[in-house]
Amino acid sequence: MKIGILGGGQLGRMLIQSALKYDDEFYTLDPASDAPCHNISYFTQGNFNDYETVLNFGKDKDVVTIEIEHVNADALAELEKQGIKVVPNASIIRTIQQKILQKEFYKAHDIPSPEFQVIWNSDDRIIMSLPFVQKMNTGGYDGKGVQVIKNEDDYQHLWKEASVIEHLVDIDKELSVIVARNENGETNTFPVTEMVADPKLNLLDFNVCPVLLTEDVQRQIYLITEKFLAAVNSPGLFAIELFLDKEGKVWVNETAPRLHNSGHQSQEGNTNSQFEQMYRVVKNLPLADTDAITYSGMLNLVGAEGYAGKVIYEGMEEVLRLPETYIHLYGKTETKPGRKMGHINVLADSREELMEKLVMVKGMVRVIADS
Amino acid sequence: MKIGILGGGQLGRMLIQSALKYDDEFYTLDPASDAPCHNISYFTQGNFNDYETVLNFGKDKDVVTIEIEHVNADALAELEKQGIKVVPNASIIRTIQQKILQKEFYKAHDIPSPEFQVIWNSDDRIIMSLPFVQKMNTGGYDGKGVQVIKNEDDYQHLWKEASVIEHLVDIDKELSVIVARNENGETNTFPVTEMVADPKLNLLDFNVCPVLLTEDVQRQIYLITEKFLAAVNSPGLFAIELFLDKEGKVWVNETAPRLHNSGHQSQEGNTNSQFEQMYRVVKNLPLADTDAITYSGMLNLVGAEGYAGKVIYEGMEEVLRLPETYIHLYGKTETKPGRKMGHINVLADSREELMEKLVMVKGMVRVIADS
Repeated sequence: MKIGILGGGQLGRMLIQSALKYDDEFYTLDPASDAPCHNISYFTQGNFNDYETVLNFGKDKDVVTIEIEHVNADALAELEKQGIKVVPNASIIRTIQQKILQKEFYKAHDIPSPEFQVIWNSDDRIIMSLPFVQKMNTGGYDGKGVQVIKNEDDYQHLWKEASVIEHLVDIDKELSVIVARNENGETNTFPVTEMVADPKLNLLDFNVCPVLLTEDVQRQIYLITEKFLAAVNSPGLFAIELFLDKEGKVWVNETAPRLHNSGHQSQEGNTNSQFEQMYRVVKNLPLADTDAITYSGMLNLVGAEGYAGKVIYEGMEEVLRLPETYIHLYGKTETKPGRKMGHINVLADSREELMEKLVMVKGMVRVIADS
Repeated sequence: MKIGILGGGQLGRMLIQSALKYDDEFYTLDPASDAPCHNISYFTQGNFNDYETVLNFGKDKDVVTIEIEHVNADALAELEKQGIKVVPNASIIRTIQQKILQKEFYKAHDIPSPEFQVIWNSDDRIIMSLPFVQKMNTGGYDGKGVQVIKNEDDYQHLWKEASVIEHLVDIDKELSVIVARNENGETNTFPVTEMVADPKLNLLDFNVCPVLLTEDVQRQIYLITEKFLAAVNSPGLFAIELFLDKEGKVWVNETAPRLHNSGHQSQEGNTNSQFEQMYRVVKNLPLADTDAITYSGMLNLVGAEGYAGKVIYEGMEEVLRLPETYIHLYGKTETKPGRKMGHINVLADSREELMEKLVMVKGMVRVIADS
């Protein structure tokens, strides 16, 4: 089958890597000529935000999917009209692309998400009490397009454009749950993952899976995933990012309509990974079992501050000596501060052992450049 | 790093698939334009048995390795002279390519292998008692070039060319052990795998790992791997195929200087697979941990008799519904009787459960053609 992917980054690369155990042909579209997918797929250099480019890319494929949500949804809708299968469908991509539509979606389907107000322009009166979060309607990614307005002084920083203004949740834990639904309506939910900030080192977050949760919290998450999967009306794999507040209530922060960083430890930690599941969704195959085999965790390998150029992974040989420790690099030759270059997955028999290993590994490696 | 592989078949494909989590460039050489590696590596169509072709292919690589042993070893030796790293080295490839040299290697290093006699031409007198096995010196592969001479009538079928004539072992079990050694001299041994014939169905063999063995048998295998790894004097990953005879003695049948069918279940059954280990050997990295996670087994997907043409995998959707069951196809579009098209790995909590699952899965699938 000819499978087209909008985006040729690491998510696409790991999807293709996983799916090499089947017999499909993968095509990718990305503006960067050296995108991580360029040499493992039939690669087209081009802009996935451009209507004509996406239409041309998709028209001879059996199915078109995404590994990034900031794509031209109009072109995807047109492809659907022309009979090309699009996973997830253009409508849900468009809903999730726009924070305003996304919030309205949660509201319409009774999915708990922080109280919000929409502002369209600079004249709108703000009724949300301080502090609150402002999320730009479009263009947000990896924390961009999001800011916290803490006090009246901060009002001057308010973006005067279409955005969502949202009640600031008093967060106890940040959680994520990856759900999948195929065209036949089968669904599957991965074990819940926690994104843990390391309190001592104040460095990057780790993913930890599974998480010990009270029965009540588990029930809340179960209801959220059930409502989401019933409402979504599209095949797809979705990462639902959640806040657990200090009073024990679960809120949906936002949803990604694609493979997600919070699911990377599933590569070795679960009976099947998010990448295998995504493949099955795209092909409308029976969904995979996704039980946690043991405790698993992930840390991102991010370009260190002050280094740009040809990447060097300092300390990697020592990491390779550790049992049940798995390095995943993304085939990017150039690093720059903050760039996601890879990740490391770790397995352990307990959460305590896992956290110790994650902190240790984090201290062993640095992503620098040779110049 | 530029890694060249002689051969572009499924073993190379799964090696590259596994190594996509690192940042190397893979180059493959294979006579078939649609070889399994052709679209996931920088592919050269050519004959890996041809001196000039191999020399040209290898000269600009950082390291050259193999996924099939029937390659031009003279060219590899010349590449070594020119300073290109060859893994495993040309000398051990040449030794293993020729059954006579292979048997002399075992004898020289006190590695138990069935008693043998070399015959060079039709005049040589045979002193080996009947029944015996004849193995052609070169060109044997997947059971070709091997025959059993049972009685005096069979003498007429004897191949009149350079070959080894070997005592026929009264086999209790066929075992395999995959060992690895890197350039730094680090070594690793995978858990022992049994190749089990299914007595009821008389179909293909399964791999089952790990195997319950007496302490004495374990000790014999340990000594064989230790002697082999000390003698081999080359980095490499090797599959040592063993016979356990009915008196409890272990014999080396033969060795492959490469990735091997008997190690496929390590993809999901072990903390790291033979493919990850091979990658580490090729790059002289610390060797990986290879413990068995649970019971694992494999069955080959082989083209059914009577079918040739565009492949159809009958029953595969039902297999996808089974938990802890992993399909691996090789990207071959055309099937023919007996062609290895893929394999299925299965995990289970006990050997009994594993055998049941393997027999069940075997009964569910058929590799046929659409014409």
